[in-house]
Amino acid sequence: MRLQAAIDRVSLEDAVALAKQLDGKTDILEMGTSLVKDYGNLAIVKLREVLTHTTLLVDSKTIDEGAYEFNQAFRHGGDIVTVMGAASEDTLKACYEVAQKENKTMMIDLLEVADEKIEKIKNFPEAIYALHHSVDRKDQFNAASSVEDFRKKHPEIKRLAIAGGIDLEQANLLAEQGIIEVVIVGSKITKAEDPLKAVKEFMGAVHI
Amino acid sequence: MRLQAAIDRVSLEDAVALAKQLDGKTDILEMGTSLVKDYGNLAIVKLREVLTHTTLLVDSKTIDEGAYEFNQAFRHGGDIVTVMGAASEDTLKACYEVAQKENKTMMIDLLEVADEKIEKIKNFPEAIYALHHSVDRKDQFNAASSVEDFRKKHPEIKRLAIAGGIDLEQANLLAEQGIIEVVIVGSKITKAEDPLKAVKEFMGAVHI
Repeated sequence: MRLQAAIDRVSLEDAVALAKQLDGKTDILEMGTSLVKDYGNLAIVKLREVLTHTTLLVDSKTIDEGAYEFNQAFRHGGDIVTVMGAASEDTLKACYEVAQKENKTMMIDLLEVADEKIEKIKNFPEAIYALHHSVDRKDQFNAASSVEDFRKKHPEIKRLAIAGGIDLEQANLLAEQGIIEVVIVGSKITKAEDPLKAVKEFMGAVHI
Repeated sequence: MRLQAAIDRVSLEDAVALAKQLDGKTDILEMGTSLVKDYGNLAIVKLREVLTHTTLLVDSKTIDEGAYEFNQAFRHGGDIVTVMGAASEDTLKACYEVAQKENKTMMIDLLEVADEKIEKIKNFPEAIYALHHSVDRKDQFNAASSVEDFRKKHPEIKRLAIAGGIDLEQANLLAEQGIIEVVIVGSKITKAEDPLKAVKEFMGAVHI
């Protein structure tokens, strides 16, 4: 299992400082959508500059113009870029083609995607499919049981990630379960009083 | 009917030059998603500076963190901001609350949104609902008949916009039909050899 630490809703200066701190300490650093929307490609370039031992994921949440957005994000330094599962199948195909051609990775964000749609978009074997519970949604989310349900329903999808309020306890359960490839943690690391301590704890949980 | 001219996939410098040219010549200027993703809030500020007689729409395509993204886009100078109909109902509510509070407008992008979901999100009376045919999709799109179908299915939704390869002939038909409030035109204006001539033609078609 790999840990992805997500940086969101901070200034670019603070994001770069945090990325420097977390370089080599997390497997993947996520440049959150708020940084994409606030600063654009400049933020990708600035984060890329300070990451020497950590993979950079750009949470672009592409939903149209797939080839354009993926090309831009990879060109500026992203290793993994996200597309919404809610996008059209043609958009998903366009993103996948760019990712495969560039030898990079597409992550499909399954936020608000129904099972019937997942059935239609399960044919991207090298993509990572991210189960995602919206930060805006007010209902609860049980990570490990969501993963188990998903695996039963969609056994063909091999590469899985999960996001949405994951805490240390849930990370431990996910690691024991052994299905998920990438655990995405946001504020529990990057808004922690001591992000280095928090990332160390999550890395310990994830790499058992 | 109002005309919305969309700028996409150009440098910020070219976008600003084009916005200067189109100020007062189109009802709404759209800062396309490619500019959001490439330049972030800086592009909103720069376009806002040169627009004195035209409304600025930021095609943010928000799909999560609704309050944050809408607040940022309005604060930097947007008058209308877009959210995806594919977002969770809680995200849509969060965006609408911000828009209403700021006395601004939410546009809901109905890209890839099924009728059952539309039924659940039709309760935002002051929002504009945009019928949208993905640029990545390879199938055809008949604007006027799509609008007619939509009105029959969802008569409660009063404010409608339409986007997706609209040409002058389709704009004329939509104006005759008289259902749509905003016609969104991209490359047919902003990538035209003479954008000023093109915008004048579309404004003539739209304002009959």
